[in-house]
Amino acid sequence: MKFSSKIDRCQLSPIRKFAPYARAAEKAGKKIYSLNIGNPDIATPSAYKEALRSYDAATVGYGPSEGLEVYLNAVMSYYDVKLGVKLEKGEVIATTGGSEALCIAANALLDEGDEIICPEPFYPNYSTFVTIPGGRICPMPTTPENGYRYAVREHVEACINEHTKAILVTNPGNPTGCVLTEEEMRIMLDVAKEHDLFLVCDEVYREFVYDGSPLRSALQYEGYDQNLIIVDSVSKRFSACGARVGVLISKNMEFMHHAMKWCQARLCPPTVDQIAAAALYTVDEHYFEMVREEYKRRRDTMVSRLQAIPGVQCKMPDGAFYLMATLPVDDADKFQMWLLTEFEGDATVMFASGEPFYATPGKGKNEVRLAYVINCDAINGAMDVLERALREYNNK
Amino acid sequence: MKFSSKIDRCQLSPIRKFAPYARAAEKAGKKIYSLNIGNPDIATPSAYKEALRSYDAATVGYGPSEGLEVYLNAVMSYYDVKLGVKLEKGEVIATTGGSEALCIAANALLDEGDEIICPEPFYPNYSTFVTIPGGRICPMPTTPENGYRYAVREHVEACINEHTKAILVTNPGNPTGCVLTEEEMRIMLDVAKEHDLFLVCDEVYREFVYDGSPLRSALQYEGYDQNLIIVDSVSKRFSACGARVGVLISKNMEFMHHAMKWCQARLCPPTVDQIAAAALYTVDEHYFEMVREEYKRRRDTMVSRLQAIPGVQCKMPDGAFYLMATLPVDDADKFQMWLLTEFEGDATVMFASGEPFYATPGKGKNEVRLAYVINCDAINGAMDVLERALREYNNK
Repeated sequence: MKFSSKIDRCQLSPIRKFAPYARAAEKAGKKIYSLNIGNPDIATPSAYKEALRSYDAATVGYGPSEGLEVYLNAVMSYYDVKLGVKLEKGEVIATTGGSEALCIAANALLDEGDEIICPEPFYPNYSTFVTIPGGRICPMPTTPENGYRYAVREHVEACINEHTKAILVTNPGNPTGCVLTEEEMRIMLDVAKEHDLFLVCDEVYREFVYDGSPLRSALQYEGYDQNLIIVDSVSKRFSACGARVGVLISKNMEFMHHAMKWCQARLCPPTVDQIAAAALYTVDEHYFEMVREEYKRRRDTMVSRLQAIPGVQCKMPDGAFYLMATLPVDDADKFQMWLLTEFEGDATVMFASGEPFYATPGKGKNEVRLAYVINCDAINGAMDVLERALREYNNK
Repeated sequence: MKFSSKIDRCQLSPIRKFAPYARAAEKAGKKIYSLNIGNPDIATPSAYKEALRSYDAATVGYGPSEGLEVYLNAVMSYYDVKLGVKLEKGEVIATTGGSEALCIAANALLDEGDEIICPEPFYPNYSTFVTIPGGRICPMPTTPENGYRYAVREHVEACINEHTKAILVTNPGNPTGCVLTEEEMRIMLDVAKEHDLFLVCDEVYREFVYDGSPLRSALQYEGYDQNLIIVDSVSKRFSACGARVGVLISKNMEFMHHAMKWCQARLCPPTVDQIAAAALYTVDEHYFEMVREEYKRRRDTMVSRLQAIPGVQCKMPDGAFYLMATLPVDDADKFQMWLLTEFEGDATVMFASGEPFYATPGKGKNEVRLAYVINCDAINGAMDVLERALREYNNK
């Protein structure tokens, strides 16, 4: 039996592919420090559960394909009050997580052989979203020495060819934590506009910038309406990853028309979660400050511990809640498998192997992405394990 | 700016495209009888809301990509106890509604130019799901005179060519209500197996068969494991359309491996809805009997009223909760627009225009799909409106 050549080219997620081994290790009584996935342990604001408790519709019916009004209004109000961005009805579509928003954008833009430019390393699921409609990622290499910065006009333009349809960036960056400066963001927007491309800005980590001024959303720059697509979500903002409620924003009405075709086919995002997500948007600024402070402590703890392990290299990330680290191993995937199946002790560590964060062949083999989404004590525990594991792995 | 040629070929859903006009009519004080969409008014079992109320996790985290164990176990137990079908772990993946299951199947199977055979008329969103990966539906025409039956070996085989990848059926049928007999189902399975095709059975209406014996699921036939893909959902079964929890089932492990690539990329279905969906599976058989009786009354009411309207033709459907009707109008789409924007009175009716239920050009223009998902009083009200509207529309 033959399958789609496109799905054949896709891979299992490096972030989730070891999950079965982890569950086996856990069932065998092992504690797992999960640094592989951005699934924070920060409590979801109580507004979420309060909304669930007061949900009282007799029938859990479909909502509109573009999203429930209560949720769309909450999103529009957040953009207005917090960012000074006025969004109109029709410019915002509720999605089943930021993931669906990315999937819709890729499917609306890409034909077989089309390309999306993406700074590398990038979130590996981008590969799947881009490959499913037949596209490919054209990677823009960055280096830790250069702080993973990518917004250099000549470098971006060197990637543009007749197949290019869009540029896709995560800002703040996943996995690098790189945050675009105002000038850099303007370069990305200008290049997109001049070359008639879409700039897809995945800003789900917008709240998490630890030094300097807060993130300036791409929507806050004027004059780029027709080129801009924003992906956003409640998952990270409110530690509500399982709520699966995101948003796709664009002022390009032709794009939104195509997006609605997808949205109407899949009917609607989850009804109750949209109502609860709307409630999440009522939390005050103090919540964000508190969470940001907590992530900053975790980041600092993880970076200082990592930098003290012989052979490990990593940079201090500016935003989001991930970092890329180089480990003194030949193959991070093999090391991960060893950690889950052979490493002795009552605890072990999971990370995301680096290779799938790169489209350039051969890169990232000795790198890992670590998510600082567990508390400082747990991070210290994880770093103790990693330090000992690296010693034992390299002496075996 | 250029968009995907595939999304260009997609259309807005005929079931949802009039929604903005309906909302305008509603805001102007008009009552709308919504027969256009399968969004029942039957109460969702209280187990759903009880599960929401007792949800107590501190953080609404991601679940596994294949679904939460509590939900998968509930589904597997339903198949075991109710249908005698033993499913193993790995053969069942939780999806964000049956819609996502269909989308995954289409994307795992279809390349540009590939075909899926589908009895016509069919659920129009199938077109979108099939067109997005570049495929097309090869329609197998059926007629009301023949009860919309399609499982005739020669007819199915006549549609098979080198581009064919699968056969897709809704059983019980949407929009026709056609329910496959045991011999018919075996024909579909045999043809699929002999020609090395997948048979995708969308069985979301499984519970709703009004005459004769209950539906025999395709899974209950032995010997077709490698060819069978089942799409199922809690939406219709428990009147919980907004819960967005479905399931993709197959014993073909290569297919499930490809499906998991999609599932890992989109991370997971909604966490709370999966927990509540698991609770829904605890309702007893009495619930299904009661709901079935109610739909049967609605079906009988609608059919007898429709058949009494001059110029309207429709057949008694055997299952699901839709019927196709021919109206004495030139163009059902124009009639719908007139009903929403010009028809005078305090109430109006929405239906789904017939044309997008057909891939064969020119067919279905004077047909509509009606969903008998509102109670008998409302159906009578809707039929009063329809009768008067047809008279006025044809006399204007």
